[in-house]
Amino acid sequence: MILLDGKKLSERIFVELKADVSAIKKKIRLGVIVVGKDPAIEKFVAQKKKAAEEIGIDVRVYPFDAAITTNELRKRIAELVHEPKNTGIIIQLPLPGHINKQYILNAIPPEKDVDALSARAIGSFIVGKSNIMPPVAGAIKSLLEEYHIAYKNKHVAILGAGNLVGRPVALWFLQEGVSLSIITQETDLPEQLLHKADIVISGIGKPHFVKGDMLKDNAVIIDAGTSESSGKLVGDVDPESVAEKASRLTPVPGGVGPVTVAMLLKNLVTLAKIKKR
Amino acid sequence: MILLDGKKLSERIFVELKADVSAIKKKIRLGVIVVGKDPAIEKFVAQKKKAAEEIGIDVRVYPFDAAITTNELRKRIAELVHEPKNTGIIIQLPLPGHINKQYILNAIPPEKDVDALSARAIGSFIVGKSNIMPPVAGAIKSLLEEYHIAYKNKHVAILGAGNLVGRPVALWFLQEGVSLSIITQETDLPEQLLHKADIVISGIGKPHFVKGDMLKDNAVIIDAGTSESSGKLVGDVDPESVAEKASRLTPVPGGVGPVTVAMLLKNLVTLAKIKKR
Repeated sequence: MILLDGKKLSERIFVELKADVSAIKKKIRLGVIVVGKDPAIEKFVAQKKKAAEEIGIDVRVYPFDAAITTNELRKRIAELVHEPKNTGIIIQLPLPGHINKQYILNAIPPEKDVDALSARAIGSFIVGKSNIMPPVAGAIKSLLEEYHIAYKNKHVAILGAGNLVGRPVALWFLQEGVSLSIITQETDLPEQLLHKADIVISGIGKPHFVKGDMLKDNAVIIDAGTSESSGKLVGDVDPESVAEKASRLTPVPGGVGPVTVAMLLKNLVTLAKIKKR
Repeated sequence: MILLDGKKLSERIFVELKADVSAIKKKIRLGVIVVGKDPAIEKFVAQKKKAAEEIGIDVRVYPFDAAITTNELRKRIAELVHEPKNTGIIIQLPLPGHINKQYILNAIPPEKDVDALSARAIGSFIVGKSNIMPPVAGAIKSLLEEYHIAYKNKHVAILGAGNLVGRPVALWFLQEGVSLSIITQETDLPEQLLHKADIVISGIGKPHFVKGDMLKDNAVIIDAGTSESSGKLVGDVDPESVAEKASRLTPVPGGVGPVTVAMLLKNLVTLAKIKKR
């Protein structure tokens, strides 16, 4: 079994982006909205900040109190998206439970929507009129292409239909006309669908849920689900049993995660280029 | 096997809509953009016009020459959507091959987009922020509800991923978190996926492609694909062999078709009500 090295791929993308950023001349800045205080969220934000700054992109974090109302937050974001210095804006998820998440995500106009999570960005993407891809879908596409794994004539199974992994990845394959199964909590005997899949993409956040005996021989397994287990980052896939069945696997950490950060910054650079035209 | 009577259901929806329309007082008008001349298209437009007028809705058809350019058509539609008398606008598909279809569909603002085919309408729908459903998805939902067929905990197979049937129906089930397979031309051994499906929705336009032996016992079969065969409307499903396997089937004609027209007019009335507020 071959491990798909997302760390290495992301580093190559960062080198390309660094050249792009210095060619653009005008300063690029990513605004990051953070609501509340959470060590896990702070860690993710710090990772993005470090990666961005290493390629010459400024990051400005906008912290908000966890008790802020949906309306007040939307008003503040509407101001921040009009700040010309912010080339793009992301809203760090999850948001506190009382916030109307999609209403907040919709406050970002498509030309600054680096994560492509607003209704308008998603709509443009599904009809094939978007300049960028949702970062996780872009990351999976890059990994498949990097390792010359054909997907257009394969059957793909997606575990989970959440808005950060399952949904954007499903929309991408749907747009590409790829044969597809979406496995949710409602799926009876999910292994029947998994056994048919040449490529499995998991984004459910259940540690080591996917075992080797659920899979087709020589399947390609993309693990895009992460949970924390006693301070360690753990994927959806049990690497030990899967190693005996799969032909390819993305490790956690060092698989989909770093490429997703790279694609996020690539989206930002793409939006900066379009703005410059 | 029970036939799901779409004709009867549509007639009941029309009665409700007629009452709604007369309660709204202000005249409701549907603008229909037709590009080129085609007897099949003219027949569909005439059906919609007749149904609309019977419930008190005006219809105005805007015919354009088949040779019109994408840019000229987009400019003309931009004018027509600003005409206050047009409560809603639809673009009769298919458009001639030289036209950039999605660019034209995107000319309709969400508040007048009765078919919900623009990027913005699709985006609002997939994030659960739309007041209307794509008509064919609304029709299938109505039929399932009318006949008390639960779908949330079932496995659904969709044949085809086109933008009029497969895609909007897939987006609806994806949003609802339903376990789902999307079968395309790339699917190897589609019967493996069909055999797992409690509900099958077909929208491929291949006459009598779906045979009984492809299906699970007692499956519910929704035939949303239509083709013309020697002047007769023919569905994707072979009713004879399917009758021996399925528990429920929508006939063609008289199944999904008339309910889709009813849902289109229901969308128009919903948009009129929102505008009135």
